[in-house]
Amino acid sequence: MNATGFAARSPTGPLERFDFERRVPRSNDVVIDIHYCGVCHTDLHLAQNHFGFTTYPIVPGHEIIGRVRQVGDQVTRFKAGDMVGVGCMVDSCQHCRPCNKGWEQDCVEGPTFTYASTDRQDGSVTYGGYSDSITVRDAFVLSLPDGLDPAGAAPLLCAGVTTWSPLHRWNVGKDSKVAVIGLGGLGHMALKLAKALGADVTLFTRSAGKEDDAYRLGADHVVLSGDPKQMKAVAGRFDVIIDTVPYDHDVNPYMSTLALEGVLVLVGYLGPLSAPVNAGGVVHGRRAISGSFIGGVPETQQMLDFCGRHGIVSDVEIIPIQQINQAYERMARSDVKYRFVIDMASLKS
Amino acid sequence: MNATGFAARSPTGPLERFDFERRVPRSNDVVIDIHYCGVCHTDLHLAQNHFGFTTYPIVPGHEIIGRVRQVGDQVTRFKAGDMVGVGCMVDSCQHCRPCNKGWEQDCVEGPTFTYASTDRQDGSVTYGGYSDSITVRDAFVLSLPDGLDPAGAAPLLCAGVTTWSPLHRWNVGKDSKVAVIGLGGLGHMALKLAKALGADVTLFTRSAGKEDDAYRLGADHVVLSGDPKQMKAVAGRFDVIIDTVPYDHDVNPYMSTLALEGVLVLVGYLGPLSAPVNAGGVVHGRRAISGSFIGGVPETQQMLDFCGRHGIVSDVEIIPIQQINQAYERMARSDVKYRFVIDMASLKS
Repeated sequence: MNATGFAARSPTGPLERFDFERRVPRSNDVVIDIHYCGVCHTDLHLAQNHFGFTTYPIVPGHEIIGRVRQVGDQVTRFKAGDMVGVGCMVDSCQHCRPCNKGWEQDCVEGPTFTYASTDRQDGSVTYGGYSDSITVRDAFVLSLPDGLDPAGAAPLLCAGVTTWSPLHRWNVGKDSKVAVIGLGGLGHMALKLAKALGADVTLFTRSAGKEDDAYRLGADHVVLSGDPKQMKAVAGRFDVIIDTVPYDHDVNPYMSTLALEGVLVLVGYLGPLSAPVNAGGVVHGRRAISGSFIGGVPETQQMLDFCGRHGIVSDVEIIPIQQINQAYERMARSDVKYRFVIDMASLKS
Repeated sequence: MNATGFAARSPTGPLERFDFERRVPRSNDVVIDIHYCGVCHTDLHLAQNHFGFTTYPIVPGHEIIGRVRQVGDQVTRFKAGDMVGVGCMVDSCQHCRPCNKGWEQDCVEGPTFTYASTDRQDGSVTYGGYSDSITVRDAFVLSLPDGLDPAGAAPLLCAGVTTWSPLHRWNVGKDSKVAVIGLGGLGHMALKLAKALGADVTLFTRSAGKEDDAYRLGADHVVLSGDPKQMKAVAGRFDVIIDTVPYDHDVNPYMSTLALEGVLVLVGYLGPLSAPVNAGGVVHGRRAISGSFIGGVPETQQMLDFCGRHGIVSDVEIIPIQQINQAYERMARSDVKYRFVIDMASLKS
């Protein structure tokens, strides 16, 4: 099946139009006409080969919202016309213990990612959502709840579930005090979701001037992390801290703001924390440093349903796909409130 | 009331006989004739002023077993003749939220420690268990279950609860896979307790030759942590790792041996972990680095009752108090299996 999208062909070249084939649908496949695709920082990392394993051409995009065009014989959960989403994964072994628990991101054999990954059936490279259509195994297709703006819903598929998963795992609810470090794509979703879960929500930020946005997005309090007085005032306060910082940073100052048995959850960074972690900061008060990586398919649907009930979508700036290269430049300097979403109708212009 | 014990009078001098006063019992006090007192590494640290805040003379000792001599008017839980224990704490505010939860070690005002601490009522310095008697508020006195060897039970009051508390908090039971790093005073208790809880238990050790002891103490498996092949063979295996290492060390190699949502719990070290913690090691699989510090009074009693039912005591080497200085030298080079306990009858000789 013919498809059109935008691809990077080298680490330094621009993303540009790319015509390619989508596979003939298998019996358990869903063919989706893509309406919107969010732009995640990971897209930029992989398009520019920051991790060293990218092969080209690469079609990024894993925050996909679209309408079902057709389904395979064995597909019962979806039909043509349904509004659906696809997130970071499009397949997994489906029989290991993590997969059986709905933790496909932890699949023992490794999940198949939505782009720059290898299809488990035919060995082809997966192409992502910066395109007019995608063909995905039904088990990895999500239902979009009625009433959610489809453009704003796109980032829920990655930024949404990445922050939902730790809030859910660590039992955030109306008696919880939650803090969020950083106000970007992940951070603004964490504020919205924690607030809707009923928590008392604080934003930690390094720079003044974000208060109005933070309050609008769900924060009850804003703390300047560089101000020792403000940090001291929240000592021992938080049950859960969602740390969205995407680079090496010192977690110790935040550890002392955790309540007894509180946990700081890293969601934005995978490298070494070069500032030595102070063991006393976890020993005293039984605090913890943990992390979380996207989320499984069942909890992604759970998160979407929650967002449907609470009317939660991402704050997005909609762009035509022809502006994707400028969007990457702006994203690299954090100049976006709070997520770019590509209007895929622009592909036809 | 006259008391006799052994005290250090300077960071470098030996511990030697010291006569002092115990307070006249208050209405909620229990006066205990001490039979045995365990020797914890913390005793050595404080006697030699390793943390810089010791005042002299200091009478160490917080693993106390003895018999009740008399009780104050308002004491109902104990009577003369009862065998009892006293651990690391002898008082706390008793009205803050942690105290109300039985987490006296987290008392907002700070607990009163058994020695080298300041009594909340009269401002005197507390003197510990290297002595013939001690006077302790009833709420901080533990019942010794019938049938437990009193000398072997002494180390339960610190080493026992320090390892019990994280095993209990992280729900270790018969379906759990637990690893213990290090085979010392804490490590050998962790093996015994984890095994009695029904877990499959592994010892991580740097040096060969500890296998026989490890298996005898409860280990099902022994892994040489310096052997990459053995480490790889246990990748993704453990639900809980009790890390008893008392000095700076690299936790990253152990993180990869944790199962999904597994937790490494530091119990032996309070300083900086100078090897950079790899964020990916907690993000992938939602693993965690946590810690634990002794334990509250209710869980100390719970641990003692558990040990009573399972016949668990520490492996001890009983010494007369006159050998305490040699014992410190041997403890400093880990030459003890696995805890020195002072027979306090030796004070009279």
